[in-house]
Amino acid sequence: MPLPVPVLPEGVDPAWLPPAAFRAIGGRRTLIRGSASLVETVHGEVAEACRRFGGRVERDGPDGGAYDLVLALGAGGLGDEGFSCVREGGTTTVTASGGRGLLYGLFHVVRLGADAFRGERAREIHRPALALRMLDHWDNVAVHPVMGQVERGYAGGSLFWDDGRARGDLERVRAYGRLLAACGINAVAVNNVNVHATEARLLTDRIGEVAEIAGALRPYGIRTHLSVSFAAPVVLGRLSTADPLDGAVRDWWAQVTRRVYEAIPDFGGYVVKADSEGQPGPFAYGRSHADGANLLAAALEPFGGTVHWRAFVYDHHQDWRDRTTDRARAAHDHFVPLDGEFAANAVLQVKHGPMDFQAREPVSPLIGAVPRTRLAVELQATQEYTGQQRHVCWLGPMWSEVLRFRPASGATVGETARGGLVAVSNAGADPFWTGHPLAQANLYTFGRLAWRPDAGPREVLGEWIALTFPGAPARLSEGLHAVLDGSWRTYEKYTAPLGVGFMVQPGHHYGPSVDGYEYSPWGTYHFADRDGVGVDRSVARGTGYAGQYGKPWSELYESPGTCPDELLLFFHHVPYGHVLKSGKTVIQHIYDTHFEGVEEVAEASRVWTGLADLVEPGRHARVAELYEEQLRCAREWRDQINSYFFRKSGVPDARGRRIH
Amino acid sequence: MPLPVPVLPEGVDPAWLPPAAFRAIGGRRTLIRGSASLVETVHGEVAEACRRFGGRVERDGPDGGAYDLVLALGAGGLGDEGFSCVREGGTTTVTASGGRGLLYGLFHVVRLGADAFRGERAREIHRPALALRMLDHWDNVAVHPVMGQVERGYAGGSLFWDDGRARGDLERVRAYGRLLAACGINAVAVNNVNVHATEARLLTDRIGEVAEIAGALRPYGIRTHLSVSFAAPVVLGRLSTADPLDGAVRDWWAQVTRRVYEAIPDFGGYVVKADSEGQPGPFAYGRSHADGANLLAAALEPFGGTVHWRAFVYDHHQDWRDRTTDRARAAHDHFVPLDGEFAANAVLQVKHGPMDFQAREPVSPLIGAVPRTRLAVELQATQEYTGQQRHVCWLGPMWSEVLRFRPASGATVGETARGGLVAVSNAGADPFWTGHPLAQANLYTFGRLAWRPDAGPREVLGEWIALTFPGAPARLSEGLHAVLDGSWRTYEKYTAPLGVGFMVQPGHHYGPSVDGYEYSPWGTYHFADRDGVGVDRSVARGTGYAGQYGKPWSELYESPGTCPDELLLFFHHVPYGHVLKSGKTVIQHIYDTHFEGVEEVAEASRVWTGLADLVEPGRHARVAELYEEQLRCAREWRDQINSYFFRKSGVPDARGRRIH
Repeated sequence: MPLPVPVLPEGVDPAWLPPAAFRAIGGRRTLIRGSASLVETVHGEVAEACRRFGGRVERDGPDGGAYDLVLALGAGGLGDEGFSCVREGGTTTVTASGGRGLLYGLFHVVRLGADAFRGERAREIHRPALALRMLDHWDNVAVHPVMGQVERGYAGGSLFWDDGRARGDLERVRAYGRLLAACGINAVAVNNVNVHATEARLLTDRIGEVAEIAGALRPYGIRTHLSVSFAAPVVLGRLSTADPLDGAVRDWWAQVTRRVYEAIPDFGGYVVKADSEGQPGPFAYGRSHADGANLLAAALEPFGGTVHWRAFVYDHHQDWRDRTTDRARAAHDHFVPLDGEFAANAVLQVKHGPMDFQAREPVSPLIGAVPRTRLAVELQATQEYTGQQRHVCWLGPMWSEVLRFRPASGATVGETARGGLVAVSNAGADPFWTGHPLAQANLYTFGRLAWRPDAGPREVLGEWIALTFPGAPARLSEGLHAVLDGSWRTYEKYTAPLGVGFMVQPGHHYGPSVDGYEYSPWGTYHFADRDGVGVDRSVARGTGYAGQYGKPWSELYESPGTCPDELLLFFHHVPYGHVLKSGKTVIQHIYDTHFEGVEEVAEASRVWTGLADLVEPGRHARVAELYEEQLRCAREWRDQINSYFFRKSGVPDARGRRIH
Repeated sequence: MPLPVPVLPEGVDPAWLPPAAFRAIGGRRTLIRGSASLVETVHGEVAEACRRFGGRVERDGPDGGAYDLVLALGAGGLGDEGFSCVREGGTTTVTASGGRGLLYGLFHVVRLGADAFRGERAREIHRPALALRMLDHWDNVAVHPVMGQVERGYAGGSLFWDDGRARGDLERVRAYGRLLAACGINAVAVNNVNVHATEARLLTDRIGEVAEIAGALRPYGIRTHLSVSFAAPVVLGRLSTADPLDGAVRDWWAQVTRRVYEAIPDFGGYVVKADSEGQPGPFAYGRSHADGANLLAAALEPFGGTVHWRAFVYDHHQDWRDRTTDRARAAHDHFVPLDGEFAANAVLQVKHGPMDFQAREPVSPLIGAVPRTRLAVELQATQEYTGQQRHVCWLGPMWSEVLRFRPASGATVGETARGGLVAVSNAGADPFWTGHPLAQANLYTFGRLAWRPDAGPREVLGEWIALTFPGAPARLSEGLHAVLDGSWRTYEKYTAPLGVGFMVQPGHHYGPSVDGYEYSPWGTYHFADRDGVGVDRSVARGTGYAGQYGKPWSELYESPGTCPDELLLFFHHVPYGHVLKSGKTVIQHIYDTHFEGVEEVAEASRVWTGLADLVEPGRHARVAELYEEQLRCAREWRDQINSYFFRKSGVPDARGRRIH
């Protein structure tokens, strides 16, 4: 039986799957062949498109010229998720080995649109580069007194949870799964990595609620994962210890995990934030993080599950007076010695940079440094430090830079992330899913880059535009590129300069506060004084962090003369008069980029205004309002940063612009 | 019938009324004469003392040598609150015209202790200098999501309210009233000046709860006041306006106020924070603050009530880039033009300084500048900006400086405050009443200074010590003086320097953040740059604030050469090399005071440790623990302030101490 396409609640935006995106398929004759549950999903999609556009779909009929499109299970060798696509003799044929592959093949045809049915197409084989393409939701079940329903969420409430309870309405979750499948995502963790008391119980007596979500996501090929507390045996199981080498603890996890799989046979596994920012972990028992991860891996192993063990372990009670301790070193210091000790189904999940999702960071030196460990790279789609979905900041270019970066090992980050690519989700119960309507592009881009890390981000953005605005005239498409393509660089320009990071308001992290974290215990400093600014992370004179990279990066980063401009203050403390490769001094660069950043936001806002006749009024108005806030905030950034550094350096702007 | 003395709940500290404070009275023969409800309170106090210490009390008997103490209503001319005290022929006689006077006379005898019964004493007449001696409780009825149960409260919950409801147990409130009466306080406002939705209803359907509190406080001579919302006619009365010149609005307030007095016949009046930090006010209707205050004054006038109209009106959405606007000017700018327009029963309640209860501010120029207005001066006993009752900071010397200050009018502030002296209360449901046990001294000192603004604060502290630690040996008394006498100056030393203020963590205001409010909309800036620091408030070059004072202050404050050192950065922006009257440069003064401040805290902590054998263990331990936190926090202040100014100025410490 074809699975009905989910019905969007009234007022909810269809994002990159508006009905018109299915016009090319829906007006044609399609044959679907094969037997698997996801084939019913494919059938339902095509049937709905045909209902709307007058085409026809048949099931398991004979091949032949009578069909414009054949979607068939069959050929082996493509894996569960791969598919091939060819067009010959007026028929476009998608073949897959498994249901997921067929579904991805269908969405491939959707992306091709009318082009899928023109002329001939040579056979192409598509397989995801990474087997795991995952979203981590930092959603709380109960509203947290400080962090709210969704920690670092800027898109309304949670899609899964509402004030302590599971949302009854799973139709929205099904629609979410459909959107995710259409960009290639195949795993979702449904709760925050900071596991509070209510959330801990999802693992045990509330597993049924997780099973319902899993049931809603399964038809779109998405497996469900759960964030768990390392202290669960104590908190939930009333054991006196959570020591990973304790037999009773191992038994407890084994039993609990068996019950999880009874409820959710295709359960993906656990996500764990341990010994991190106050979360419990193996350190309390004198055990290593490999011991901790392997405990859960052993419980999951019989069922094919995976533990995602986060590498975000650092001292968050640092003394700002101590310049020898360097938070950036922490992940590498902690985990490199453990390489080879992790179980095969334990994945070390590493943030892409050494700090915490700043607008500019170097790639984490841990990536590429643990060859005997399965490693996943974690990105942040939710814009905690990049404008909180009130600012346009399309992260495709940043992510692409990270994924194409080649650590000393020679392989790219994308190739190194054998454990998968993960993003903290930016989606919520907001009618536009992501708060800012243009932030949908980040979610879509993440999925597509996880499928193909070497994809060109601008090409992916083009896909998103074509799907989201079907039949968009060139002026709209160009306008969207104009406001999105460079938006991350623009954001970088008007915020913290040259990779130094963390000049944000403490706590909520929105808006500037140059010294907001300067005298804090968080390990996030810029050390600006009247003579210069930046953190000396060289081996010769600083914290030695630069030496955590292999060559050539360790040598390149070691010296201010060879360090890339955009990371200069991350690696070096330099005088304001230091001349960048651009030929500008650091201080003039700060002034210039901050004036430019604001001008670029103003220009983007003008471009958006000019698109009013091409975008639905509701979407246009929302973006236009948000541009007002972005412009206000960008000016605040410009003026605070420039004033701060002018007051400190005393160097006037070479162009004589007003600095307060 | 004598009124029973309130029974303290188990574990609650008796503060300055421990049973032993009544030993001298309780062991003697006392005659009480007169008829008034408060005479029953006096009778109850003496009877309880006699029960404990074996003395005798009689009522309305004949005079004669048979009595050690006579407490009698009788002589006129002393006012409702005054009393006379004389000792002749072995009898100490207190005479008062009214019940409150007799109660204050009793507590006078308690303070005298055994001295009251030695030799002869010439007749002394005691009358309060100020008719109104008031505590404003910033207590919320419902727990506010940000501010909690008590806004700026550091002493546990509220004495009156608990999570939305009135506390059932009024015995603690009675005991509170007794403590207040013993230091001379005669008025209490029972809710926060920021009147939220739940609290607004105290005025109408919840007035019965206020009446119960009033009933508990009345036997100790304390009248109850209520903070109300200027928008009450709209919020509670469903009128379409709160315009003070609207007839229906006036009628509404008249009717509501009549019902208030039906419930509480001796109700004190309203406290209003209007057009201030988001609270509603008359500006919304194009009316003046005199119009606003007079509206409520008219409603209260038939019943003898008073409206306390706060002068804390300023722009809290200021642009930090704008150096011409000066928050310090605001109260004077707003209210001087209205002098003479306020009704006789409207009191303009002015914070003692022009900003907001910083550790050091000049006296508000509004005080003394509105001779035709009844003016009350507001102090802050709750230590929002002075260590939040985790730091020892006895405010007696600061308040005394304020009260003895002579504005241009020639009279002292104490003499100018015809409308009374008000303090934001520092008391709560904490077992020690004030969180920090030594913070009790602030509450006591406030009451006594309100009674006699020209009292020497050290003498008042001596009273508090003698009452709180009856029979204290000299070593204890000297030790308490050692840790308290200079504690405000110590606090000033290790926090924001030279009167500049507001270098605190935003929001909660605890601990240092030099730039925390520097780029904010709150009007609280220090303008530190690499060359100097401070706010130019001169007439010649600055905001003109100095010109709001009459002579000699306007001249004195106008020039850095004549401005007192401790206010220099409040009035002037000076280079770090500017030489103070002390002979030190500003930057060296900053370094020196910050090192000294920490050393003084360490020394005070050592002194306290040495008193362990003389103080009950529970009290000693609590203070000792709090000293650890004070020392930690003082070091943090020292290091952040010194590092900030070293990084900015580049000037090394002349004594070569370590600055980070």
